[in-house]
Amino acid sequence: MIKNDNFLRALRGEKTDYTPVWIMRQAGRYLPEYRKTREQAGSFLDLCRNPELACEVTLQPLRRFDLDAAILFSDILTIPDAMGLGLSLNEGIGPKFSRPVRTKADIDRLFVPDPEGELRYVMDAVRTIKPALDNTVPLIGFAGSPWTLATYMIEGGSSKTYALTKGLIYDDPQSAHKLLSITAKAVTDYLNAQIAAGVDAVMIFDSWGGSLGVRAYQEFSLRYMQQIVDGLQRSSDGRTIPVTLFTKGGGQWVESIVKTGCDGIGLDWTSSLADVRKRVGENVTLQGNMDPTVLYARPDAIRKEVKAVLDDFGTSGRHVFNLGHGILPDINPEHVKVLVDTVHEYSRNVD
Amino acid sequence: MIKNDNFLRALRGEKTDYTPVWIMRQAGRYLPEYRKTREQAGSFLDLCRNPELACEVTLQPLRRFDLDAAILFSDILTIPDAMGLGLSLNEGIGPKFSRPVRTKADIDRLFVPDPEGELRYVMDAVRTIKPALDNTVPLIGFAGSPWTLATYMIEGGSSKTYALTKGLIYDDPQSAHKLLSITAKAVTDYLNAQIAAGVDAVMIFDSWGGSLGVRAYQEFSLRYMQQIVDGLQRSSDGRTIPVTLFTKGGGQWVESIVKTGCDGIGLDWTSSLADVRKRVGENVTLQGNMDPTVLYARPDAIRKEVKAVLDDFGTSGRHVFNLGHGILPDINPEHVKVLVDTVHEYSRNVD
Repeated sequence: MIKNDNFLRALRGEKTDYTPVWIMRQAGRYLPEYRKTREQAGSFLDLCRNPELACEVTLQPLRRFDLDAAILFSDILTIPDAMGLGLSLNEGIGPKFSRPVRTKADIDRLFVPDPEGELRYVMDAVRTIKPALDNTVPLIGFAGSPWTLATYMIEGGSSKTYALTKGLIYDDPQSAHKLLSITAKAVTDYLNAQIAAGVDAVMIFDSWGGSLGVRAYQEFSLRYMQQIVDGLQRSSDGRTIPVTLFTKGGGQWVESIVKTGCDGIGLDWTSSLADVRKRVGENVTLQGNMDPTVLYARPDAIRKEVKAVLDDFGTSGRHVFNLGHGILPDINPEHVKVLVDTVHEYSRNVD
Repeated sequence: MIKNDNFLRALRGEKTDYTPVWIMRQAGRYLPEYRKTREQAGSFLDLCRNPELACEVTLQPLRRFDLDAAILFSDILTIPDAMGLGLSLNEGIGPKFSRPVRTKADIDRLFVPDPEGELRYVMDAVRTIKPALDNTVPLIGFAGSPWTLATYMIEGGSSKTYALTKGLIYDDPQSAHKLLSITAKAVTDYLNAQIAAGVDAVMIFDSWGGSLGVRAYQEFSLRYMQQIVDGLQRSSDGRTIPVTLFTKGGGQWVESIVKTGCDGIGLDWTSSLADVRKRVGENVTLQGNMDPTVLYARPDAIRKEVKAVLDDFGTSGRHVFNLGHGILPDINPEHVKVLVDTVHEYSRNVD
């Protein structure tokens, strides 16, 4: 039994003591103790591949803040790396693949990595973190969406326009679907292995789904997230594992996202939680959605904005507070404490 | 009388012969003749400041393609430059202000530039282009939205997170409102001067409004666009001047955008035109919204996507075809011809 299971209860639609809160990228560069462990590990990837140190940075934000969930420390690009594309991650430059997917032959060479083979280090991290958490709060596992992974695999790194990836979906949709199918299968196996290793909930980050057109999103991103949702082991050892889908920039598409049967929808700060609730009904949890830049402001302004998000959501339940995207690396950790404490205090009083 | 006034008729809600089309940044780097004139002029800003050459590049795309409107060749940053912030525009680096707005004293120094003083070169360009067009198609004038201009003025250039600008709106909203008020007044005067100089329609580019949270958008972007719409001379010499507002990433907010009383709403490719039409009613024109990256694809794929946009809109009228953002600099001009001709042929048959 998990002592503080408010996060899981919110995702199941059960009553909670207050609005649970966690923060995307809560184990990260804004924390001095993270920067120290990261230095000790070597590169970012060395840190991901070291289960003890990955466990250490996963736990660091929980020591500072009253967070309602932990999230596995890892990266969405572990899967394409395990497919042999040769990942390097350098601060300031961003991710790079030395062998990006550029030809039909490159697509033919892709394969579904064995989660307990090439990706065993991720499962080992889960198996290290889960007992270390000692059932204080749930552990979230995660993966990137097939579309989001495809943009990195094809562009070979970050991109502003996704010129090559979008060129492929419009010029040769069949090849694009082949790549996305293999990737969807890889993500499904990877998340199921995380569930078997002990995570209590999973989340799919469709960070660049919002770059797609309204029709292309359905065909090249949501379709593959649906395949993953359908293929997940959503109960394991008597546990129910909720799944949350987060398409950044996808606020116009929530009606179709909820149809996948997911338990939670992540939202960025451009959406009104009240408006989305009206559009999707009561059977899904909303996660979000404060603008991460609010944390640059002074404590009073942060409190005001946290309350505005909670007021916008209202008192209907099924809300997990979060930022609308990952926390920025130059945020003052004291400001995060203000956010977390305000969420708890204010939502406890409202309920 | 303008010979081809389909663009203006679409904005007025009158019957058109076909769906009119123009392309954001249609006078630009993807055209070899533009690159030649640009080289002749010196810098990008030299080109903006030379009415004859600005006229030449405005007309270039009309010689190649059957476009239904011309747009003044200029830049949204002319206003902050005229306020004394010291603009430089360098390819690959992006815009830079040598004297960005960082303190209350900086805000106090801002002033409303005289459109026939510091900005006379823009009005001279309008007065040169208008007769050169010889009433073949309408001429669109434009400006940046106060919020979008503010991000450049405060950050000193482009930004991924708008950390300083958002820091200001949350920490010191009063100072932010002061800056935005002056800028809104400057934009209003600037557009009214363009109207007096001869433009037939105006457009406000709120390129970065979509970075704001749902509530902050209302307070810090839309509010100031409303002030501009209210202050525009929308009839001049018996002419009616339609105004189009374009918030990139603003698809969730169209109900509030239409309430400004604008004649047209620009939309990016994440919106369904059919869905937006349902939400905003019949009394506004929708402009957009093909993903600019579709132009990387082969002609057959371009035709298919153009038709998908027209089919999504349907046959209800009040549509101006455009991309959902500016054309990318590495697009093959032949592909633009495919787009323009397909819009005309397909929409003529549907009507």
